[in-house]
Amino acid sequence: MTGTSSAASMVSSNDVNGTAVYGADGTQVGHIDHLMIDKKSGNVAYAVMGFGGFLGLGEDHHPVPWNALRYDPAREGFVTDITEAQLRDAPDRGDDWQRDRAWEKRTFDHYGVPYYWF
Amino acid sequence: MTGTSSAASMVSSNDVNGTAVYGADGTQVGHIDHLMIDKKSGNVAYAVMGFGGFLGLGEDHHPVPWNALRYDPAREGFVTDITEAQLRDAPDRGDDWQRDRAWEKRTFDHYGVPYYWF
Repeated sequence: MTGTSSAASMVSSNDVNGTAVYGADGTQVGHIDHLMIDKKSGNVAYAVMGFGGFLGLGEDHHPVPWNALRYDPAREGFVTDITEAQLRDAPDRGDDWQRDRAWEKRTFDHYGVPYYWF
Repeated sequence: MTGTSSAASMVSSNDVNGTAVYGADGTQVGHIDHLMIDKKSGNVAYAVMGFGGFLGLGEDHHPVPWNALRYDPAREGFVTDITEAQLRDAPDRGDDWQRDRAWEKRTFDHYGVPYYWF
């Protein structure tokens, strides 16, 4: 049986903002600015990450599939295998990206992670 | 194929606070104060609801299984079938309720909704 130790991994939606995200090499690559939640399924779809001057990305914000992040309790932060190249090559998005399933599919395929809507 | 219309139902974690929750009879029963997110799975586990004087519950806050709420786009709010009696009879919780799987099971069973951790 799994599921007996539970929720030391629970976080309040109030406390997500600013949580650090580390790259595969252990250096901090950015932080979570906010989450985008699919209200109907209750799944977190995207972490909108802020990159404060990381690798020349300035103060840009990128929606990154939540499935591409995993929580590391030891660091109290998230870890991702997403690379700078992937971020630079991410599909361009319009203002309606949250409603654009074609963009969503391209993006999840780009990052190689499962869709949140299945 | 489902999943082509997408995410008019997406909400920012910054915007969840204060969203209205309506009872089965259509009256507002409370609001969402914040969400509790299981970081590892990415599932929203609980909506911690505030009940501002609703039915004598005063300013109490109750963690309610997210699965017991459904989003109603027409009202831009959530609807729940949870009754006052269920709230009153909800399993007592300790300060460590977020880490207490036994309490979590009792609570989800009480409200008759699927566990978020499966």
